[in-house]
Parts: sequence; C-alpha cells; structure tokens
Amino acid sequence: MKKEKYALGVDIGGTNIKMGIVSDTGKIVFKTMLPTNRKGGPEEVLSQFKKGIKSILGEKKYKIKGIGIGAAGSVSSKKGTVSNPPNVPGWKVVNIVKIIKKEFNISVFIDNDANSAAIGEMLFGAGKKNNSFALITLGTGVGGGLIFDRKIFQGSTGAAGEIGHISIDHNGRKCNCGSRGCVEAYVGNHYLMKIVKDELADHKNSKILKLINNDTKLLTPIIINKAAKSGDKYAKQIIERVGYYVGSALSSVANLLEIDTFIIGGGVSAFGKPLTDSIKKTLRNNVLKVLKSRIKVSQAKLKNNAGMIGAASLVFYNLK
Amino acid sequence: MKKEKYALGVDIGGTNIKMGIVSDTGKIVFKTMLPTNRKGGPEEVLSQFKKGIKSILGEKKYKIKGIGIGAAGSVSSKKGTVSNPPNVPGWKVVNIVKIIKKEFNISVFIDNDANSAAIGEMLFGAGKKNNSFALITLGTGVGGGLIFDRKIFQGSTGAAGEIGHISIDHNGRKCNCGSRGCVEAYVGNHYLMKIVKDELADHKNSKILKLINNDTKLLTPIIINKAAKSGDKYAKQIIERVGYYVGSALSSVANLLEIDTFIIGGGVSAFGKPLTDSIKKTLRNNVLKVLKSRIKVSQAKLKNNAGMIGAASLVFYNLK
Repeated sequence: MKKEKYALGVDIGGTNIKMGIVSDTGKIVFKTMLPTNRKGGPEEVLSQFKKGIKSILGEKKYKIKGIGIGAAGSVSSKKGTVSNPPNVPGWKVVNIVKIIKKEFNISVFIDNDANSAAIGEMLFGAGKKNNSFALITLGTGVGGGLIFDRKIFQGSTGAAGEIGHISIDHNGRKCNCGSRGCVEAYVGNHYLMKIVKDELADHKNSKILKLINNDTKLLTPIIINKAAKSGDKYAKQIIERVGYYVGSALSSVANLLEIDTFIIGGGVSAFGKPLTDSIKKTLRNNVLKVLKSRIKVSQAKLKNNAGMIGAASLVFYNLK
Repeated sequence: MKKEKYALGVDIGGTNIKMGIVSDTGKIVFKTMLPTNRKGGPEEVLSQFKKGIKSILGEKKYKIKGIGIGAAGSVSSKKGTVSNPPNVPGWKVVNIVKIIKKEFNISVFIDNDANSAAIGEMLFGAGKKNNSFALITLGTGVGGGLIFDRKIFQGSTGAAGEIGHISIDHNGRKCNCGSRGCVEAYVGNHYLMKIVKDELADHKNSKILKLINNDTKLLTPIIINKAAKSGDKYAKQIIERVGYYVGSALSSVANLLEIDTFIIGGGVSAFGKPLTDSIKKTLRNNVLKVLKSRIKVSQAKLKNNAGMIGAASLVFYNLK
C-alpha cells in the first residue's frame, strides 16, 4: 500500500492566513486560520506566521515533507522573497523562505497565488490531464498562471502570467496600472461591480435590484448569478459580456502561445457554465484556424481551498 | 586556431528559393538562388530544391554540418513537415526533412521563417547577448518568434509566436484570419499600404505623392520612409502610428511573459529608428511598473539575408 505524503500549504491573504495539511492526492486533512493582524506590520505578521506553523507541525500524525507558501503581490520563487504584499503596510522585501527554513529546518517553497493555483489545478484539479494550459483567476484583480509541458512559466523574475493586463482595446477603459483597455479594467471584481452599479440605473426592473434591496453596496458576483439563474435578462447579459471580454484577451494568449486549454478560477468564476460557455464561444470566434476546434474552457476545481491546496502543491511539484 | 564550421541555409519563399553556405559565425560564404517554379506543383518545387542542394553540397571547400530550412506557412519542426505553404498550389503536407535527409544522408532541420529568424538573431544578430526576447517580423504579415532562456518557444505543434494576431481592439479592423483588431490588420504591409492609399486623399500635399508620381500602386514602406526623412509630416505620422500599434500589441506580450527585449525585423522595419522609438515609447507607457525601466527595442541585424542565415542557424542551434 502506497503511503500518502503530506505538505503544509500556507495561503497569505490580506485578512487571513490560512494553513492546511494537504495530502499528495490533494486532500486537506487538517486546517486552521489566523488573522493576518496587519497593524503590527511585517514583524507581527511573521511572528504569527511562525506560531501557526509551529502548532500545525505539531500534528505528529502526518509526516510533512515541506511547506508551500502562496502569496499575493510580487513574489520571487527563485529568491524566496515577497515584496510589497498588498494589505501589509511596511512590508518591503522579505525573504520569507529563508526565515521559515531556518526556523523549522524543512523544505520551503513560495510562489504567487495565481501560479500556486495553476500548479494546484495541474496536480489535483481541472488540469490533471493537460500538458499545457492557462489558469485565469477572476477576482478583485485578474491573474494568471501559465503551464507548458507540466512546468510553470515564471518569466525572468517571476512576474509572468499577467493575463489581467492584456489590453483588449488600446483606446479602452483606464486601468489602475496606467494602461488602457486591460481586461482587468472590465472584469476585475471592483471594476465590474462599479460598471454594473452604474448600469443598473437603466435596468430598474432587474431582479438584481430586488435581491439587494436597491442597496448597490451589496452587489456581488453571487447576486448577479442568482438573478441570472432566475431568468433576469440584464444579469445574463453581464455574464455573457464578462465572458466576451475574458475570451477576447485569451484569444491573444491562445494565438501567441498556441495554448488551447483554459481553466477559469476566482470569485467571478461563480458565474459558472454560462461564463465558460461565453468565453469558449469568443475564443472559437477569434483564434487562428489551427486552434479553433481544439479550444477547451473549464472551471477550476479547487474552489475555496485553491489557495491552501495550491500552496501545498508547490511542495509536491518541486520535490518530485 | 578554431576552424569554422558551416551549414547550408535554405529559405523557401513564394518567388525564390535562396540557398547559402553560412559559417558558425554567421557569415555567408556562398549563395545561390533559384525560382520556386510553383506552376509545376510540389513535385517540381522539390525536384528543383534537391538539384540546388546537390550543386551547393558540391562546394567541397566547405565542410557542411547540416541543412537548415526556413519556410513560410505552417511548419512542424518536430515532424519535419511543411503544410500548405502560401504560393505553392497543391502542396498539402510534405515531410521535407525526411525527403532531404534520405537523399543526402545529412542532418536536416526545419522551422517557420519567423522562428528561424529569431534563432538567427539570437546566434548572430541583435539577440546575441539576450537570454530572452521576442522577434517581430513586420512584413506582408506580422510574425513572431519567442526566445526564452536561449530556447525557441514552439508551442505544442509549432504554431506559437503569432504576434500578428494579438488583438489591440476587440471592436477593431477586420483581419483576414476572421478576428478583429489583430495588429496585422493595422501594420501588415498590404493592410498598411491600403490604409495609406485611402488616407492620401486627405494629404494631397504629402511628399509621398510626389515620390510616386501620384501612382499609389508604387507605394512601399521605403517610399514612406524617404518622405519622412525629407520632413514630410504625414509620412512621419504613419511611422509613429505603426509604432504605436505594434507597441500596443507588444505591451500585452511583455505583461503576459515578462519579456522586456524586442527585436524588430521585416520589410516595414525599414522605417528604422523613428519606428523603434515609437514602439519603445508605447511599451514604456503601457507595461506594468516592474518592466517599464527594462524595456529595450532594437532593429534586427540580419536584414536581407535573415532568411538564409536564420535557416542555417537552425543547424548550429540544434547540433550544438
């Protein structure tokens, strides 16, 4: 009987640090969560972080092969550093891998959240059978992870995969990054909710408004999805359009890299099949002939625990 | 004293087949050209092809390590096939590598013209010192070759690198490929000359019209460049705008792949420094912060013989 191996996956978010023991078949066997306590600055976050790891490594039932860390912001997996993570003021460049390795004498790996999620989907999720694919995370921002021949594509310093900053219109919407027409400026959660809020003025009868009691602060992708499922035309339009924008950006990715398989994750992917259908339709309309019949678009499988499982998967990916 | 090694580079174009003996320092020491004689169909083209190789391999002065073939159209470097090359009617899928290998008992390699040119620039041209870069060929079509860590990126079947079919406007100009807003539909030579021809109606005083005696059939990038150099405002505008469109597409490439170095080749690159300056400016305006200061744009160095030298470079690249 093959004995399962385990890794500790750590998902550093702005609000919480989630930690889980994950098996080499992708199952979470133990998990815990601590607040990020950002006010204390990087020192305090690191101290909590260590405390959490210490307690979880105490779970002697599981032989843990290593620690994987997924973090938002600018991560160098080669150097082991996290730079300027959003929501942790005062944190400049911290070599978190070195610190944790030294403290616990165990293998430690790090990558940004989108790359971790892509590796997680490859080992345990929707990308298990694919040699090459792009993962797109539709959340507050739009991120991406590129897998070629079962390897993550990092770029020279780890900054590759910024699918959200593919421009679909050189004259288009202004993006926070300073450019125009980035797909993130159309479908990133903040931007999207603002667009919908503005447009609702012209859709007074939309079920969306009923579901939120006319309080647009309560607007979420889940609400829009609910309205669409109950037949609301405008809500369906929104989902169709998000798919069109995402599909437009991904068509450029497909043509540039000869990628035909796309996996959609993140909060906005709650739109489900109508979203992936719209993305697929747009891709098939726009990609070069050689790719048309090969295009596949599916939903990410790891869902809510993608962060933890993705982080843990860094250990299995790097140690195998 | 290090003895030079040689390769035979074969550039299959629609009109001519160019063949050259190229040294491992990138110098052409012997060259010849034969008409493609397309009317005879694939059989006739192949027969000429063999005859040409035979005669050139007779140049006993040079010890030839192998034959490299660069071809337009759909090429699989793994399989050794060329499928449906434009301008050779009746040519479906031909395993040209197998045929030539069998006939001459020598190492044979093939790739599409853009990938060959990228490898040529890497070994002998503007990319000699770069680990990673993208080559963009601005010709009738807009092609591309992607080099990461001194390796060509092929995609799963060799179709990667289609920079010309990155869309810069999802609502933009209709492209021959069926999509909209592909950068090729703005700056590919045919499209560009048509745009300029139409616009000249509003620029009756442009020096361009004088240079071509009002005969717009004579319009070429070289004419536009001449007019721009002599101070013509509209001609300068055209070049600036081509740079803007190319830069817009390349910004998406830069963000997606963390590529910071771009090499511009092909006939339209005759626009020279004003073109590369405009591309660079656009890139710097649009790419993510991490890339801004790193952006480099230069002209390809291999120029007119890029096809032959690029094809020969496949031998040095694959045999080293």
